Parts: sequence; C-alpha cells; structure tokens
Amino acid sequence: DGRFSLGLRGLGQFDNAYYDQDDSASRLSSANGGALSSGSNFRRAQLGIQGKLFGDWSYLFNYDFGGSSGNEQQGRVQAVYAQYDGLAPFALRVGAYPPPANIEDGTASGDTIFLERNAPAEIARGIAGSDGRDAITALYTGGKLYAALSLTGGKVADSNTYAGEQRAVLGRVSDLFYSDNDWRLLAGVNGSYVFTPPFTNTVGPNGAHTITFSTSPELTVDDTGTKLVSTGAINAEHAYHWGVEGAAQWRSLYGQAGYFGYGIDRVATGLSNPNFDGWYLQGTWVLTGERRGYSAANGAFTSPKPSVPLSLKGGGWGAWELAARYSDLDLNYHEGQIGSAMPADGVRGGEQKIWTAGINWYPNSLLRFALDYQHVSVDRIGSTAAPVVANTDIGQSFDVISLRTQFGF
Amino acid sequence: DGRFSLGLRGLGQFDNAYYDQDDSASRLSSANGGALSSGSNFRRAQLGIQGKLFGDWSYLFNYDFGGSSGNEQQGRVQAVYAQYDGLAPFALRVGAYPPPANIEDGTASGDTIFLERNAPAEIARGIAGSDGRDAITALYTGGKLYAALSLTGGKVADSNTYAGEQRAVLGRVSDLFYSDNDWRLLAGVNGSYVFTPPFTNTVGPNGAHTITFSTSPELTVDDTGTKLVSTGAINAEHAYHWGVEGAAQWRSLYGQAGYFGYGIDRVATGLSNPNFDGWYLQGTWVLTGERRGYSAANGAFTSPKPSVPLSLKGGGWGAWELAARYSDLDLNYHEGQIGSAMPADGVRGGEQKIWTAGINWYPNSLLRFALDYQHVSVDRIGSTAAPVVANTDIGQSFDVISLRTQFGF
Amino acid sequence: DGRFSLGLRGLGQFDNAYYDQDDSASRLSSANGGALSSGSNFRRAQLGIQGKLFGDWSYLFNYDFGGSSGNEQQGRVQAVYAQYDGLAPFALRVGAYPPPANIEDGTASGDTIFLERNAPAEIARGIAGSDGRDAITALYTGGKLYAALSLTGGKVADSNTYAGEQRAVLGRVSDLFYSDNDWRLLAGVNGSYVFTPPFTNTVGPNGAHTITFSTSPELTVDDTGTKLVSTGAINAEHAYHWGVEGAAQWRSLYGQAGYFGYGIDRVATGLSNPNFDGWYLQGTWVLTGERRGYSAANGAFTSPKPSVPLSLKGGGWGAWELAARYSDLDLNYHEGQIGSAMPADGVRGGEQKIWTAGINWYPNSLLRFALDYQHVSVDRIGSTAAPVVANTDIGQSFDVISLRTQFGF
Repeated sequence: DGRFSLGLRGLGQFDNAYYDQDDSASRLSSANGGALSSGSNFRRAQLGIQGKLFGDWSYLFNYDFGGSSGNEQQGRVQAVYAQYDGLAPFALRVGAYPPPANIEDGTASGDTIFLERNAPAEIARGIAGSDGRDAITALYTGGKLYAALSLTGGKVADSNTYAGEQRAVLGRVSDLFYSDNDWRLLAGVNGSYVFTPPFTNTVGPNGAHTITFSTSPELTVDDTGTKLVSTGAINAEHAYHWGVEGAAQWRSLYGQAGYFGYGIDRVATGLSNPNFDGWYLQGTWVLTGERRGYSAANGAFTSPKPSVPLSLKGGGWGAWELAARYSDLDLNYHEGQIGSAMPADGVRGGEQKIWTAGINWYPNSLLRFALDYQHVSVDRIGSTAAPVVANTDIGQSFDVISLRTQFGF
Repeated sequence: DGRFSLGLRGLGQFDNAYYDQDDSASRLSSANGGALSSGSNFRRAQLGIQGKLFGDWSYLFNYDFGGSSGNEQQGRVQAVYAQYDGLAPFALRVGAYPPPANIEDGTASGDTIFLERNAPAEIARGIAGSDGRDAITALYTGGKLYAALSLTGGKVADSNTYAGEQRAVLGRVSDLFYSDNDWRLLAGVNGSYVFTPPFTNTVGPNGAHTITFSTSPELTVDDTGTKLVSTGAINAEHAYHWGVEGAAQWRSLYGQAGYFGYGIDRVATGLSNPNFDGWYLQGTWVLTGERRGYSAANGAFTSPKPSVPLSLKGGGWGAWELAARYSDLDLNYHEGQIGSAMPADGVRGGEQKIWTAGINWYPNSLLRFALDYQHVSVDRIGSTAAPVVANTDIGQSFDVISLRTQFGF
Repeated sequence: DGRFSLGLRGLGQFDNAYYDQDDSASRLSSANGGALSSGSNFRRAQLGIQGKLFGDWSYLFNYDFGGSSGNEQQGRVQAVYAQYDGLAPFALRVGAYPPPANIEDGTASGDTIFLERNAPAEIARGIAGSDGRDAITALYTGGKLYAALSLTGGKVADSNTYAGEQRAVLGRVSDLFYSDNDWRLLAGVNGSYVFTPPFTNTVGPNGAHTITFSTSPELTVDDTGTKLVSTGAINAEHAYHWGVEGAAQWRSLYGQAGYFGYGIDRVATGLSNPNFDGWYLQGTWVLTGERRGYSAANGAFTSPKPSVPLSLKGGGWGAWELAARYSDLDLNYHEGQIGSAMPADGVRGGEQKIWTAGINWYPNSLLRFALDYQHVSVDRIGSTAAPVVANTDIGQSFDVISLRTQFGF
C-alpha cells in the first residue's frame, strides 16, 4: 500500500589515472608527493538497502568497500540512518551519514561533475561532516528552500582515548530563488563550529587534541594517499568554517561557485589564531541538449539524464557533457619566506590551484564515463626541520589524466 | 510454491552515552577505567539475507559493520549458516553463528530489554558461544520444549598458531512449562565445557594457552572498550560454566532471573582451580498494555509489538515499556585484602554490581528508542605490580545515561 | 520487459580440516609448516547483487567476508564490474574481478571438484589474475569457442609506493571442439606476461620490485596460511606463464589435465633467469548418473545438478560424485644438493606433489558437502641461513582430511 518499500542500492566507481610529474619532483620526499602513484582504484564500491516504513519513516543502510586514499578498504558504514518524515517538509534524521554541509556536498557522489568534489568545499565538509559521521539532523526540504542543522560527533570507527568524541554543529541553508522554463538560480550559505575537538592523544586527558585541515589534489588514485596541502596537526580549542555558494542554470549550461573561510582557535599559547580560505568556479555544457536536474531532497543539482540511451541498433548515443573547473585553496598563514624559518604563529599548509577540464559520457541513466585532465600547482614552503632541505620550496606542478567508469542505481 | 524464500535483513543500533565518573576515578589507569569515553557508536549495523531452499533447508548470511568495543569495525561475518529442517521439530545447523547458550542469549539482539545483555549471562555465552562462533548444533524446537547441543570451535577471524582452535560443547534446555491467557512460565538450564583451550601463544605448542573471563559494564559505547572486571589470562586445561534461568510473564508484566557458575581448570601447577559466579534479576512493565512475545524458535521472549503505531494524524503513540535490572558478577577468587599481596592461587577479577532503569519506546514494530540509566559499582583490588599503586582499591562507582536508536527488519 | 534484472547472490563455504603430521615435522620452523593448524574456516562468505541494465549492459557487485589464509577476513571486493554486451558474442568488461586465466580458473568457485583449485593452475592464475584484480577484458563467448584477453593491474587493496601498480596481459582461448550426446571434448591454451612488476618497496623508485610464486597445499584451513612451496621474492624485470589444458567428458565420467610453465626475468644481475613448471590430472564419476554441465559463459565445466533432490519423504538422495586428483608443482631451479649451499642463480622453492581423493554430495542444486582426503609430499632444501639447520631437507609428507559445507545461489 505504498507505506513500506525496500530497495537495493549499488554504486561502483572505478578510477584509473596517470600522474605526469616533472623530474624535479624527485627532490621531494614521498610525503610531499615526490612520487605519486599512477594506477587504478575503486573510489566507491557500495552496497545498500533503503526504503520506507509505516509511511512516516525512512531508512538507509549503505556500506562502502572502496577507498578514498588510493586503495580499496574493507567494508564499513558509509551511511546508516533512520529518519522521521511525519512532519514533512520537516524531518529528523539520526545515525551516521554525511550531514548536509554545502551545495557541493549535497551533490550526490554519483552526480559530481568531476571525479572528486572541489578541494575548498571538501575541506569545509570534512570539519564536521563527510561519510559516516555520527549525527542528528533537523531537515527542511520545502521544494525551493532547503535547510539543515546537524549536531555531529566523531566519524564511524574514530577512536578517542579520553573524554569522548568531537562535538560540533554544522548547518546549511539554500534557496532556489528563481526558476522558469530556462533558468534556475540557487544560492546558499553554510557554516560549522567545533565545540570540542577529538581527544585522540594517548598521554592523558590534558594532552594535545588536534585538528588538521588537509585534502587530496581533487583525485585519490595515488596509492600513498598523499595530501599536497596540509596545515599539520594544530592543538585546538575550537575550529570553524563559513561559506557562500551559488549556482545558475540556463538550459543545458550550468555554473557553480563558492567561497569558504576556515579557522582554528588554538589552545591558549599567546600565538595568533590561524585562518585560511579557498574558492572555486565550475561549469558544464551538455552537448546533447539535456539539462542537469535539481534535487529538492538534497538542495543541489544532479547529473543530466540522457534522453536517448546508447544503442548500437537504435542509434542513440546517450548524453555528452563538457566541464571545466578552477579551484584555489590557501592553507598558508603567516608562512614567511622561502629560505627563512617560519614565524612562531605561522602555518605552512601550502596553496593549491587546480585547473580541470573534463568530458562526461552518460550512455544511459545508470552508467557514466568521466575523462578528466587536471593541472595541479602547489606553492608550499617546507618547515625548518623539513623534508630534504629546510625552508625550501616543496611545491610542484604536474598534470594528471584520469578516467572513471561508474555504474550505480 | 513456498519451498523457496529469500528475505533481506537490516539492523541498526546507534548508541549514545554519557559516563559521569567521580574525579577520584582519575587515580586509575586507563586500562582500569580511569577515563571512560562518552560519545556515540553503532553497536550493530547489519545487512543480511535469509530464506528457505527446497522446503527442507534454511540459511542465513548476516554481516555486521558495527562494533562492541566502542568503535565500529569493518564488515565481518556475524552469522552464516545452513540448516536442515527435514526432521522438524529436530534441526541440524552448521556454520558460524551464536550457538544457543541460555535464555538471555536466546533473546535476539534487537529484542533485549536493555542496550546489552546482563553481564553474568554475557560471560556464560562468551565461553563457547557468541557471534561468529564456528559450530554445529543439534536443535529441538517443539513449541514448549527447546533444546540445543552444540559442538563449537573458534570464532570467525580468531587466529591460532598451534594445534588448532578451541574445542568445546555448549548446551541449553528450556521448557515453557505453563501458559494460559494471562501467564507464561519458562525455566531453563545451560552449561558449557571447553575441552581444548585456544592455542594463541607464539612460543610453540607447549606454551601457555589461556582463557580470560571479562565483560564490559553492560554498555559498550566507551571507545577504549574498557572491561572493568577481568580474571586476566589464566593458563587453562579446561573451562566450564553452568547456569539456571527462569522467566515469568503475567499480562504486560515480565520478570526474568538467572544464576551462573564459572570455573577454570589450571594447567597443573599445584594451585587450586578458581571458580566464579554471577546472577541477575530483570523485569519490564509495558505501560500501554501490550505483552512481550514468546519465540519458540529461540526459546526466549521478544519485544512487545505496538498495537497502535505512532501516527501524528491517527493519534497512536506506539508502545511504552518501563524496565529495571540488577546484576552481580563476581570474578574474585581468593583475592585477599587491600594492601596485601594476592594469595598465590588468587584471581583479582573484581566484583561488578549494576543497577539499571530504562524506558523503551516502540513507535512501531520496526523502530525502538531505549533510554537507560545505570549505576555501576566495581570492587576490585589491584595486583602487586599493578597500575599506579600496588594492591590498592582499583574499583569505582559511576553513573551512565545512554540512548539507543534502533531500526531493523 | 527483460531489459532490466536484479538478483541477489550468496555463497557460503565452511571448511573443517584435520592435518595429520608426523612427529618429525616438529623439526621444521613454523614458516615451513612445522605445526599446521587444524580447525575450521569460512573459505568464502559472499554477498552480492548482479543483473542487467537496458538490455545491453550487465553488472556484478560481489563482496567476500571469508578468507583464503585460514582466517576469515573483513568484507572486501571480490568482483565489481560493468560489462557491455551490445555486440554479443563479444563483450567488454571493466572493474575488479578474476580475469579469465585458464579452464580450471573458469570453473566457478562453487563448482570446483575439490576444496581448492589445483596448485599448478593456482600459480598460473595468481600471476596476473585471481579475485579482485583490476582489469579490462575483451571477451568472446560463442558457445563453443571461448576467448578472453585482459589488461590487468594490481589487486584490490594492493598498495604500491612508487610509480604505480603491476601491469600485465593475461589471455586464454579454449574450444569445445567436439560434443555429441555422450561426449564433450574441450582444449585450451593460456598465458600471461607481466610488463611491470608491482613497486612495493619503500626505499625509492629504484629499489627492488619483486615477484613471488607460492601457493597453499590445495587447502587453506591452516590458520597460519603456511605455503609449503615458495620461490621467495625475486627482484623481477618481467614474469610470465604459459599453459595447455584439456577436458573430456563421457556421460557421467569427467577428466581434466593441464601443464603450465612459469618464469621470471631477473633485473639484470648476470645470473640466469629461473623457470618452473607444474601439471595436474583430475577426474570425477557421478555415481547417481548425472553429468557435469558446460558453461559457455565461463568456458569451463560446472557441478552436476541432482536429478532428484534429497527428500526424506519423497525418497531422493541427491547426486553423489567420486573424485581424484594428482598434481605436481616444481618451484625448484638449480636448487643444488642437500647439505650444500645453493648455487648463486638457484631457487629452492620446493616441489609439491599431492594426491587427493574426494566424495561430493549434492543434496540439491544449492547445497554441497565435499569430503576430501589429501596426501601431500613436499621436497625442499633449506637455504644457507635457513630455518633450524642450514641446507637441510625442509620438506615433509602428511595427510589431511577435510570437509566443506557449501550453500549458495
């Protein structure tokens, strides 16, 4: 009678990549990306069930056997939650899942334009969100207005020796403020605040409890999981981020942009508190005329659905989409000069700029091939005691070609 | 034609807890519970399939992605077995699964009154049973009489360097000896005997092969998985337990009690063989008038099914149940006095007494919220060389508030 | 409309074994099988979904929670792929899966005659194939002719520090060149070539990149996962294998044989390049008259389907099958003499000869019990610095009884 449903979910994302680094990269330590590893990796290999219970409740059990560090990991919780829908458009969700963090985060992992979400949005969602985050979320999904406020804890399998897990709030609001036959305009704000950083130290409840901002170069095939930009572990009292994003669609053209600020309040040391920022701009053009869709449930856009699926007999070719992105993530703070020691309150996290161009082919609504070219530039200064030679340039530029084969339902 | 069936199973149990310890606990080492970690944890996140084949056979594939040590673990076998039902009410089951150990063990993990089974029954089922135990079981499930005899081996993923896995027998018999419209009375006995302890040592086939009795304080949210009472590893020739249990139901009232004795036969040392015991008493009252059910297949009672599910439109509120429990587990043997060295044959495992009061809310037959308050008292003496100060009191008392969100089918 | 399908897959293989070793084996180190561990193990505990999409595409998501090293492992990708069938009988498959390696490999893991595939075929499929291998395969499955050519990479969860994963090609061709009412005759060739060995060293891109040929004694219950024959890690430029196989069926009799050669091209050292070989002969007789089937999709034979399933009421007894095998795997190369140091270019991998006799009982088409007796003989010389005493005989002979309980669909 429609009050109960049960569906199976599967998602496979098989990535292949070739990293083309200069010989000059060999001066760098392995941790700084001296030798990125080409090859293949299942970014996601998921299996799950979802459905409705008694009309008023919904649930999801979703497990992932892929990996985001260049290697497949063993099966683990990606999202398991129960949700009360009896007061729609309000809902209450509890469990472990990616709590709504921003528009880019709301784009489902099968619907992202490129292989990975842009780095600035990735940092923002990582602070108090991302896969397998223990959370309770109040949701409002009213067609145009989307709002979510989450109280979040640690991530699944995080282990904390003392005094409990991270505690944070995370929220986003967005509005599809204009839509007609040709246009859709979406704007949103988001933010997070970490009340209590995770206690992962082993030296006692008064030891360091640190937070690190770092992310991969918008690709995770490299087996070593190298993160070229990273603030390193900072002993933190609190951490936060705020962000603004917008998206615009005109027929089969789509554009999206965002700006994020991040900061850490140090455990009292007399040193100034570091802050960082990042921004991105990305767009697509569906050559075959289809349009990206809009999901009111996620407050974000979805992949185009091909109007004529590939068929060697019938003559269809699916949907073809061109895409481009630029992102700039700056994790430096009072970083000082090459050749000099870092100021006492400095953070040499590095600045990462990435150009990406891509072609997406959707033979049908359940399959996708994504061919991307990236040009990655990292500007970063090593630390005093740092890899190979102190205080030298540990940045690099390189190109990557990658191909994702994706199938999911 | 009913001879084949295939069903999906899902079970999510998301626990949140706050441990309220005295400042005096900080004198204790971390291993003795000096700093229990509040937070959240998926106790169980299961996915499975089950069904019938050719009418005469049944099977279960069930995998768990949650964890019982305060952290979610990676997916693993909880129960995978095949069963021959062609001689019903007799059956033969083979595979890895929790072999029937006692009435409390027979209560399905989604039907337990509190977040965890009581500690004395948990010790009893742990010796030769519990999740993922390799076993072959002869079952008799004749409506009122329930009997199970299992030959059991190691647990899934146990690794044994020498001479093979633990070998043991485990049995239980229970009888629903009286039932009418108002009353149900159930009594049972159980026992286990370990012929060969597991060879987990690395120094050769003649090295120590030890058995440890220990369990969590009837809650497993603490990230460190601390077990406040533990016999420590005892070099064992054999181990055993025996138990008696009873349960009585009158309309929406339910009571259950049990007593268990445990013992270890040492590898010949001239020292006396230690033995231990524990008992529990627990009961519930379903405020909304429903009754706990009885499962002849498990020889144990089940959760009440709400007669009117929660509905903001229709006015139902589901079922509400009050519950209380007291358990006393004594793992001391010739423990001597505080301030003195332990006698040569002593075991300072500690005595744990727990009061629990709880409210269970079943909005519908597939959902449950359980709010529990526990008062835990541990009396335990440290060893000569032991944590912080030798031979001192390493016990403590503390309170815990916990909330489980459970959904399953 | 038949263009879409979705099916669940489950496979459980629960193995019990008793290793009967001579006392003389205790002279051997644990790594050389001084104490093989009897007990039980889930060889496979799989859960998956498979189906068709849009008529032209097929897919498989299959995860394994069992283990091949004597212990169950945590859930991981066994096979996840997408396949394009729009040009049947040609197909293109991409993902991670066991790429077609030889006739024995093509025999599905639920259809193998004994508990494990024969050791010589296992070495051959391990070089560039086996479970969870990243690959792209061009397939031709034309009823009688079967051909597969795969470009393969690393295995799922392999981690490579430098310069990427192994790269290899793997191919097989077989032809069911004669079949009538009584007879089926199948012949095939296969081969693989490793262009680039895996870079698993940690000392830099110019460090060793090694390949090892080793395999278990056609049984994997032993908890220590001991491999009695092994070439050890050889710093390799390339590796390869070639093989020929044939199978013949006459009514309910079945026979199969194969010969394989393997080799490694060393990184230039002035030493000769080692090569090895192995062969096997195996056959079955279905006492109850059924016949092994032939799968054109796999280019290999399948288990017999019982014509009358077991039924205590109806009188059926399922299918019963007798089986025997002999395999000889020689991983020695210029191994020299007992008591003398190994020649500089020698490899003391050992020679393993195994006799196996077995009874398979198929109570119905989804269940199977396999009782096997094996006599294993290993001739092997220890290395100069080797376990216990240098250059002595580290071989042994022993018997094993094993029982597999299998259920799957």
